[in-house]
Amino acid sequence: MEVSWQPGMKMDVNAPMCPSRGVLEHVTSRWGVLILIALRERSYRFSELRRHVGGVSEKMLAQTLQTLERDGFVLRDAQPVIPPRVDYSLTELGEEAAAQVEALGRWTERRTEQVLKNRERYDEARP
Amino acid sequence: MEVSWQPGMKMDVNAPMCPSRGVLEHVTSRWGVLILIALRERSYRFSELRRHVGGVSEKMLAQTLQTLERDGFVLRDAQPVIPPRVDYSLTELGEEAAAQVEALGRWTERRTEQVLKNRERYDEARP
Repeated sequence: MEVSWQPGMKMDVNAPMCPSRGVLEHVTSRWGVLILIALRERSYRFSELRRHVGGVSEKMLAQTLQTLERDGFVLRDAQPVIPPRVDYSLTELGEEAAAQVEALGRWTERRTEQVLKNRERYDEARP
Repeated sequence: MEVSWQPGMKMDVNAPMCPSRGVLEHVTSRWGVLILIALRERSYRFSELRRHVGGVSEKMLAQTLQTLERDGFVLRDAQPVIPPRVDYSLTELGEEAAAQVEALGRWTERRTEQVLKNRERYDEARP
């Protein structure tokens, strides 16, 4: 029987009920990854971030930012000005996550040509 | 206008058409992450891997392994024996990806209690 996670239990990403799995899914989510990488550079306003992270919809950006804010990775700073101005930046915890995610992103950029070659080779061997 | 990626262009995970984005999605996919971490330890047979990575369906495991094999991260070794025996292990490129993904997974396990506290605080402030 599946036992649900209780405070004090060891965290294990391989256990289906472990809450660490959900946290890992947030930091590795499609837009979560790109937002964390962007915010490592500097703080961003919503519309700037949307331009920077190519292809993200307004809805998905808002949703992902809120998830990351609730987890304590992202700080949302709403300035009481007109028009409203909201800045997003990383917390200390978010910076820890973002550093690792950025390393993975940069590694991926360096290795993508190799991966494309691997795919070609794979497809050629299985016509 | 969106320009599709051409060989020789700089890889950029923020560009919607850049193939690096797809590669990043493979190494950070829900099951991809857990499979890479598992295979860092040792090679696994399909059924063993399915038991190890809690909650993965047969279909999703097969599909994710094939994606990782095609990208050149995972090696599939089918032994000509009866009953058939198939072992999965990491390639050198896969080991590079897996090392980073594992660091992120372990970091997540260490920080999940903190994230759970952050979520409580967030929810309390927004009743």
